[in-house]
Amino acid sequence: MRVIQKYGGSSVATIDLIRGVAKRAISAKNEGHEVVVVLSAMKGETDRLLHLAHSMHPDPEPREMDNILSTGEQVSIGLFALACQAMGEKVKSFLGFQAGVKTDDIHGRARVTDLDPARIRTELAKGRVVCVAGFQGVDRHGDITTLGRGGSDTTAVALAIALKADLCEIFTDVDGIYTTDPHICSNARKMDRISYEEMLELASLGAKVMEIRSVELAMNYGVQIHVRHAHSQATGTLILKEDSEMEKTPVRGVTLSVNEARVTLLKVPDQPGVAARIISLVAKAGIVVDMIIQNRSFSADHASTKLTDFSFTVPLTDYPKTIELMEATGHEIGAESVLGDDNIAKVSLVGVGMRNHAGVASLMFQALAKENINLSMISTSEIKISCVIEKKYGELAVRALHDAFELDKPIA
Amino acid sequence: MRVIQKYGGSSVATIDLIRGVAKRAISAKNEGHEVVVVLSAMKGETDRLLHLAHSMHPDPEPREMDNILSTGEQVSIGLFALACQAMGEKVKSFLGFQAGVKTDDIHGRARVTDLDPARIRTELAKGRVVCVAGFQGVDRHGDITTLGRGGSDTTAVALAIALKADLCEIFTDVDGIYTTDPHICSNARKMDRISYEEMLELASLGAKVMEIRSVELAMNYGVQIHVRHAHSQATGTLILKEDSEMEKTPVRGVTLSVNEARVTLLKVPDQPGVAARIISLVAKAGIVVDMIIQNRSFSADHASTKLTDFSFTVPLTDYPKTIELMEATGHEIGAESVLGDDNIAKVSLVGVGMRNHAGVASLMFQALAKENINLSMISTSEIKISCVIEKKYGELAVRALHDAFELDKPIA
Repeated sequence: MRVIQKYGGSSVATIDLIRGVAKRAISAKNEGHEVVVVLSAMKGETDRLLHLAHSMHPDPEPREMDNILSTGEQVSIGLFALACQAMGEKVKSFLGFQAGVKTDDIHGRARVTDLDPARIRTELAKGRVVCVAGFQGVDRHGDITTLGRGGSDTTAVALAIALKADLCEIFTDVDGIYTTDPHICSNARKMDRISYEEMLELASLGAKVMEIRSVELAMNYGVQIHVRHAHSQATGTLILKEDSEMEKTPVRGVTLSVNEARVTLLKVPDQPGVAARIISLVAKAGIVVDMIIQNRSFSADHASTKLTDFSFTVPLTDYPKTIELMEATGHEIGAESVLGDDNIAKVSLVGVGMRNHAGVASLMFQALAKENINLSMISTSEIKISCVIEKKYGELAVRALHDAFELDKPIA
Repeated sequence: MRVIQKYGGSSVATIDLIRGVAKRAISAKNEGHEVVVVLSAMKGETDRLLHLAHSMHPDPEPREMDNILSTGEQVSIGLFALACQAMGEKVKSFLGFQAGVKTDDIHGRARVTDLDPARIRTELAKGRVVCVAGFQGVDRHGDITTLGRGGSDTTAVALAIALKADLCEIFTDVDGIYTTDPHICSNARKMDRISYEEMLELASLGAKVMEIRSVELAMNYGVQIHVRHAHSQATGTLILKEDSEMEKTPVRGVTLSVNEARVTLLKVPDQPGVAARIISLVAKAGIVVDMIIQNRSFSADHASTKLTDFSFTVPLTDYPKTIELMEATGHEIGAESVLGDDNIAKVSLVGVGMRNHAGVASLMFQALAKENINLSMISTSEIKISCVIEKKYGELAVRALHDAFELDKPIA
């Protein structure tokens, strides 16, 4: 088998941990596999480099930032290779550009455009362990780029595709993907298998184990991912194509996000194009909108004049800027006033089975009502239902939903 | 003018110092020059990385070591670029491979084989300050190499050649090249000008300001170097072609080296090939021999049998290994016994004027004799005389010679 193993920053945080990772890679090789290891920077190193850069410039140029940040992974792979050699193993390390990771030139969040693994193939054929610096590539100018948050996962998946690997293992500091956050819900259950679509929704909704882009890439090319603990032999969670087994239950996971805020424009003219104008104003300011809800306002004093209330959620960090923007421009759109609420939480249910199971929303609303939790916004997609509630009820809502849908019980 | 400015590790040790260096480069640009800055790693960074690598492997593979070590300069240039940008200056940083620094594949002490500065020229033409990571290049496989000790000086000189620069400034933590070490001799004098040949001898003899290879390179291509203090506007020392002015005085500098030890084989057969056999044994063990002296032994008991005493010096760190080697193999060569002395110092006089001035050796020996300093070995080259003496007399000898040749007085 040809195996890609990716280890995150906490798994290579110290000399000893890197040694452990090297041992694990070598033992996979001794089982007869071809092994390509992708490493992140040692935990803390990226923060150290960010701090240095920010002491020099409040808003560092992304190209220079990439030069600086990419050194973290560079040191990791060098140390990993030395660890293998100290154990008598043949190994070769490659930087992103040496591994053939070509990207566009959007520094700081570059996309992999091509991957030519010629040098990796050569070294694998020589019986060597290969290790590759995650998170980095090279653009058409020959400049170093980085792939943004979770970029090492993307490197691993891209290598799995280019090398036609049989498996892509993502080693991390958790056992796998859980039905919900075990810190919130003590009977959260580790799932054996999850579909790409579910993983994408979970990642979008705040599950931090895998980054969205790498899951998308894996989905597009059908790369099977095994998320597992770096310091345990236990099986983790497989991320793979949806199957009939997964569809047997309507809901597979519950997530909680407390990093959003709601903005509401009251009494906006209910005319075509108004929503587009509001959202494009926000987008132009570089703010990403999540939920959008338009409610026809039925209060007596303006029912006849066709007015509507318009709400949307934005990341908490962009909340003050958004309120400011709306207060400055809301009157142009004709809004009467602008309201905001940063005291909210979003609780969501995810599951491919929702497509075929009716009554999920109904059971969700009942379970929340039973706890006297009021819903201020609701949005749905094919395999997801999200509700915005008061922040203080967030964890209670997660536990109530986890119980209501019996997520602690393995799929029969 | 097109100017190369190289700053060493102590000149970029902190965020503030890097800012100072950026200011200096920008002010050179504002004077109308095209400026290319070459940087070393922040002081302490290389040691940190070496320590990490050595905790992983007692004898790290040079290729992996180069990957790890080259990150030091990579961070420096990123921070320098950010410093320039924070001051509103246009700047672009380049890693060795981006700057076109091609080398052979001898990792850890690679030689520059070619330098294609196309990208640098483009950026200079756009009116940008360019900064380049010193100490590093890329070999024909696309692997990162480092140029060994003082490698950033070599990068600077190689860039000066490739870019046909008008001047190559080496900024360091001393004012320039002195007639001798000011810590030993309080009236040591900073020289305004020194020839390549003299600088080469001084560097070989322990002067640490410039590394030999970069001086050789500068000499071969006639690149004028200005060694000066990074935090002072004062003129330093120009390193350039020998001229008649320099030849007016016989001696230009005095050096002291206490990093050698002497090994003597007693009563070796005085036959052709014996010296070669001894030295090749030592060389095969990777030990670099400096002085070699063969003395016909005239003691009564073996005058008729054609025996000789054979002495050489080796670096102090290789002394135990050399003694061991000679004791193990000396009998094969026919030596009666092996003696050693690690309690020695080498004091040397350097000056292109020696070629034309007689009596330098004689005055040197007199000056040392006057202080009752005994000479155990003497060696000479065209522009240098070295004497091995007891270590405890080292500094006294330097002062005595500095006085005897009146080196504190500027050339008339």
